[in-house]
Amino acid sequence: MNKIKVGIAGAAGYTGCELIRLLATHPQTEISWLMTGKTNEGKRLHEVFPHLRGVPERVFQPLEPASAEGADLVFMCTPHCVAVSIVPEFLEAGCKVIDVSADFRLKDPKAYEKWYQMTHTEPDLLEEAVYGLTELNRSRLPGARIVANPGCYPTDSILALAPVLQEGLAHLDSIVIDAKSGVSGAGRSLNLRTHFSETTEDLQAYNPAKHRHIPEIEQEVSLLAGQKTSVTFVPHLIPMIRGMLVTVYCKPTRETDTKELTDLYKAFYDQEPFVDVLTDGELPRTKNVWGTNRCEIAVQYDPRSSTILIVSVIDNLVKGASGQAVQNMNVVFELPEPSGLESLALYP
Amino acid sequence: MNKIKVGIAGAAGYTGCELIRLLATHPQTEISWLMTGKTNEGKRLHEVFPHLRGVPERVFQPLEPASAEGADLVFMCTPHCVAVSIVPEFLEAGCKVIDVSADFRLKDPKAYEKWYQMTHTEPDLLEEAVYGLTELNRSRLPGARIVANPGCYPTDSILALAPVLQEGLAHLDSIVIDAKSGVSGAGRSLNLRTHFSETTEDLQAYNPAKHRHIPEIEQEVSLLAGQKTSVTFVPHLIPMIRGMLVTVYCKPTRETDTKELTDLYKAFYDQEPFVDVLTDGELPRTKNVWGTNRCEIAVQYDPRSSTILIVSVIDNLVKGASGQAVQNMNVVFELPEPSGLESLALYP
Amino acid sequence: MNKIKVGIAGAAGYTGCELIRLLATHPQTEISWLMTGKTNEGKRLHEVFPHLRGVPERVFQPLEPASAEGADLVFMCTPHCVAVSIVPEFLEAGCKVIDVSADFRLKDPKAYEKWYQMTHTEPDLLEEAVYGLTELNRSRLPGARIVANPGCYPTDSILALAPVLQEGLAHLDSIVIDAKSGVSGAGRSLNLRTHFSETTEDLQAYNPAKHRHIPEIEQEVSLLAGQKTSVTFVPHLIPMIRGMLVTVYCKPTRETDTKELTDLYKAFYDQEPFVDVLTDGELPRTKNVWGTNRCEIAVQYDPRSSTILIVSVIDNLVKGASGQAVQNMNVVFELPEPSGLESLALYP
Amino acid sequence: MNKIKVGIAGAAGYTGCELIRLLATHPQTEISWLMTGKTNEGKRLHEVFPHLRGVPERVFQPLEPASAEGADLVFMCTPHCVAVSIVPEFLEAGCKVIDVSADFRLKDPKAYEKWYQMTHTEPDLLEEAVYGLTELNRSRLPGARIVANPGCYPTDSILALAPVLQEGLAHLDSIVIDAKSGVSGAGRSLNLRTHFSETTEDLQAYNPAKHRHIPEIEQEVSLLAGQKTSVTFVPHLIPMIRGMLVTVYCKPTRETDTKELTDLYKAFYDQEPFVDVLTDGELPRTKNVWGTNRCEIAVQYDPRSSTILIVSVIDNLVKGASGQAVQNMNVVFELPEPSGLESLALYP
Repeated sequence: MNKIKVGIAGAAGYTGCELIRLLATHPQTEISWLMTGKTNEGKRLHEVFPHLRGVPERVFQPLEPASAEGADLVFMCTPHCVAVSIVPEFLEAGCKVIDVSADFRLKDPKAYEKWYQMTHTEPDLLEEAVYGLTELNRSRLPGARIVANPGCYPTDSILALAPVLQEGLAHLDSIVIDAKSGVSGAGRSLNLRTHFSETTEDLQAYNPAKHRHIPEIEQEVSLLAGQKTSVTFVPHLIPMIRGMLVTVYCKPTRETDTKELTDLYKAFYDQEPFVDVLTDGELPRTKNVWGTNRCEIAVQYDPRSSTILIVSVIDNLVKGASGQAVQNMNVVFELPEPSGLESLALYP
Repeated sequence: MNKIKVGIAGAAGYTGCELIRLLATHPQTEISWLMTGKTNEGKRLHEVFPHLRGVPERVFQPLEPASAEGADLVFMCTPHCVAVSIVPEFLEAGCKVIDVSADFRLKDPKAYEKWYQMTHTEPDLLEEAVYGLTELNRSRLPGARIVANPGCYPTDSILALAPVLQEGLAHLDSIVIDAKSGVSGAGRSLNLRTHFSETTEDLQAYNPAKHRHIPEIEQEVSLLAGQKTSVTFVPHLIPMIRGMLVTVYCKPTRETDTKELTDLYKAFYDQEPFVDVLTDGELPRTKNVWGTNRCEIAVQYDPRSSTILIVSVIDNLVKGASGQAVQNMNVVFELPEPSGLESLALYP
Repeated sequence: MNKIKVGIAGAAGYTGCELIRLLATHPQTEISWLMTGKTNEGKRLHEVFPHLRGVPERVFQPLEPASAEGADLVFMCTPHCVAVSIVPEFLEAGCKVIDVSADFRLKDPKAYEKWYQMTHTEPDLLEEAVYGLTELNRSRLPGARIVANPGCYPTDSILALAPVLQEGLAHLDSIVIDAKSGVSGAGRSLNLRTHFSETTEDLQAYNPAKHRHIPEIEQEVSLLAGQKTSVTFVPHLIPMIRGMLVTVYCKPTRETDTKELTDLYKAFYDQEPFVDVLTDGELPRTKNVWGTNRCEIAVQYDPRSSTILIVSVIDNLVKGASGQAVQNMNVVFELPEPSGLESLALYP
Repeated sequence: MNKIKVGIAGAAGYTGCELIRLLATHPQTEISWLMTGKTNEGKRLHEVFPHLRGVPERVFQPLEPASAEGADLVFMCTPHCVAVSIVPEFLEAGCKVIDVSADFRLKDPKAYEKWYQMTHTEPDLLEEAVYGLTELNRSRLPGARIVANPGCYPTDSILALAPVLQEGLAHLDSIVIDAKSGVSGAGRSLNLRTHFSETTEDLQAYNPAKHRHIPEIEQEVSLLAGQKTSVTFVPHLIPMIRGMLVTVYCKPTRETDTKELTDLYKAFYDQEPFVDVLTDGELPRTKNVWGTNRCEIAVQYDPRSSTILIVSVIDNLVKGASGQAVQNMNVVFELPEPSGLESLALYP
């Protein structure tokens, strides 16, 4: 079989270089080109990312679809509001697209306009795009032309909530998602909030109840619940590079216990190559999934306060971004789903 | 005025050395003796804590009340279940006691027995002990013989909740406290969980719904609410040395908004020297209170999910332990409350 | 005695806010004004530095000496090449100046021109300025009009070398200084090198043999040695906020051993309030001096390779910058040298 | 070709689990058994190392060679002084051995006795063992029965020094190696020095001129130099998990410059799959080699102080331990040298 020719647009950020890392050892892909914005165009890959010396040198091209030749698939790792204007050209040129940015995630163009302050110019593509939370939408992916790769917080939160929502076990009016993310989620752009001396030995909540991943979470939660549902979502910045943990709190709609909940989750994710449901009181740690596409989930019932507790961890740059993009590519092209994603967590 | 003669029992741990740091520059105290358990008894202070070279050298004595001479006040920084057996001797010898450990916090001896697996042998002292969350119980402190210094999580959580509870603004059946603590809260004893390579770049929940600070939080929440109340409490270990942040979620009992809530908190803590209520969307950061006895709180209303959000930060070793102990001492001995606690946060 | 009225120019960086922290609790100073460059002028202090909420609010003024009223002393915390053009105005207005920047450290204007690519316009002031490594130049400080506060690396390196150089014990042709600094030394300006995700879990040398602190170290080493001397100097960036450690290697000019060397250092620094010479194999740790003006030094002889080893640690923002500036102020104004610098290290 | 059957003795530490990680995805090995000491024997692999859930579950056996069946190769990851008593049994059973511990590195049994306080009972095996710094001893590895895998500091230091030593360019009486290591090098055993709150935001030298890697470095340096040579070696503990950087200082035996030195290093390591010599002023960073078997080296000449500067970085657990062990295995069994070691650095 011929290798899949892949282009990466917006390749000079953290999701871009993570994609290069994963694709460079993927047995069935070859990277055709890398594009990037003004800051890095014309620079050599090894200059911008010396840790990638192990892969062949190449040069970052400007972000111009017309100059992209011969790709079967384009990954968009651009900032939000960029993909929407470029993706149509790639599609017309016959490329498939996996958009790692936020531009095709919200089905409702009005929601996009509200949360991103921009009119969405491609409502038909919105309609067509498959929301690529692989575990939930696997059947719709093979052959898809455009995949909206989920955000990191939505990936972790929805994987945590899907089983109880589908089972109708959670009251829908009091779902709380307390989310914690490593700093790499904020990207490579400079900002006082991610300046080493400001972030180290610091802990803070940010954008409480206002983060742009909220409409994305609510869209999928509503689909799973079968009715429009709001959630409370507060993200926190944790002084570590990678890793994301969400702690979800919800009230049961009927009597339940830890055993029933765990069995439900075990059954739900039984066949999944990248989701592990923990048992016997074991709890997820982000370190267990460092650098991998895996998700660890534990669920418990707190009888004292009558609350269901769900803890779920991923690596925000892998399952939360570039790894899930590769997983989606594998399903779209009908390759073995774990291809290129077999490496184990780096520990300690 | 004569200086207060102070003894510290259990002085070789982190709360002990933090007390020494604070008392060494306090204008009205002098340290009479330091006691400690087997591991460090007989060692020199500068050997165990070279960072304290700036204070006079002395030797750690064994943990024997009989050998303690001339203290007006004893701070207990011992592990739980130690103070209960030693404190009576100190009281008989005429010392006042501020117990930084957990032994005199739970008014109900049965709760102590349930959560600490030990029968409490001093129920009368339990009755007598003032729960030293200074801001709430200030009036009962002057002259008190025994003060139960609150735990770090309870301090932060109760300061966050007190205004809405007192105002009757929070539904009592769905209070969620998602707590995050730096690693120093786990103390100086060696443990794989606090081994550098295991803890760095890691994030995990621990003891969800089972932490020993839960009955303490519920006792005080119930007092403030005027009825027995349960809370959901999940603590998380954050890869940083100091700092604690709690994010509290509750449902309002009536319509409210951010402005009303903020005004309520401003009014509630208006005269407090160590509590700052933030306004205009500003959010607390643990770095702002690093090394200080201060607490920063922000409150917001999330209209989309109809939820009150409260974020509160402290330094777990200062306001969450040794600093609050000094604050309580100041009030007990009717000194100016901020004495010895004026130093500013180390930043960055 | 009247309090000293102090102004701080360039007060919105890390050395500026560290000075404010130290001066705010200094018993004999009051801050008259804060000036800063374009980015922060007009902003409120608590907006830029919320950790300073404990001190009275004030506004950052633009960097204009003419608008500065009533200061007895100005601290310059500006970037290099700024002080040289502003300091004369402050001096004419009758203020004393302690320059925390690099502008008055190199006695030879040609050296300044070579290393800072700018002609020095105030050679007379260069001549007049006292190089404020307090321990070495204390006698020249009382009443001085202008003090050049040393750089962090020079402070740590020269304190490490002074005793062996003065004693003539070190060969001058093979002095190696391997220096390691926490990240706060790079300041608050944004840079990819100090971006959290790039710096955490990373270690690198930078500017080997080309750092601007080299001519400053060599100037003072040459004075101590009594002849022009070159040193090898390589700095490294360590993933921590504060703290600096230099490891110095030199060859002895005659037979020696650890005991003789330690005695020499003990004697040399015997009366110093801020320098501790360690004995009995104990080694310095940056954590022991975190947030303090102290320096810890240990010296050993390695008979196997015939080499003198000296290890010296400071807090780069305190003894390496703002703390030493306060120490110099105390000596200039003939106050007790430790005033305002008594706080102990924060630990752990 | 049949897969190589591999056993790992001492598999419950960091070098052990790193070996499992590398071998689990190696195309030509299969793990036959894992042995370990008392603490973890009988435990399940996923219990001790949940991050390895991606590999099949198995149980840690006690450390008994007799119970080891069917291994072609045994990796010894035991503490020093354990391998020496067990390796002979494995060899007699027909296994090859790669000893990741220190027991077969020092050719001179007296040096072993001096530095490890134990008489070496297998001098013949010492003689036979190939010192597995692959780049220098590649030709002697194919078919070798026993390989002494180098220590982390020696690996990094000798790779840094080999070219100048072989070329006779370095004076042998003043070689200084200032070494810095991440904390994982200290292993998984609990120790106050590696307790999170003690190590974070701390920097210290340890065992200056007394570290057990010194005789190993000197043995190989002497071989390269053609005469007995001492070096000055001071290691430092850096608050990060992985990564090692050595800064080497030496005096040239004749005139030289950066270009000549860089050309020498480029030529020396030209064919090496795992050593990159940097040019054009670029400097190594440990982050560039995080999780990989690569070494990055830069060399410069400092004309001001007439000193050759060499900076070299590795990942202490990979090229400094388990990765180099796999590299040696590949050469011993005449597999492609990079097999199982192709993964790229995790970044950021």
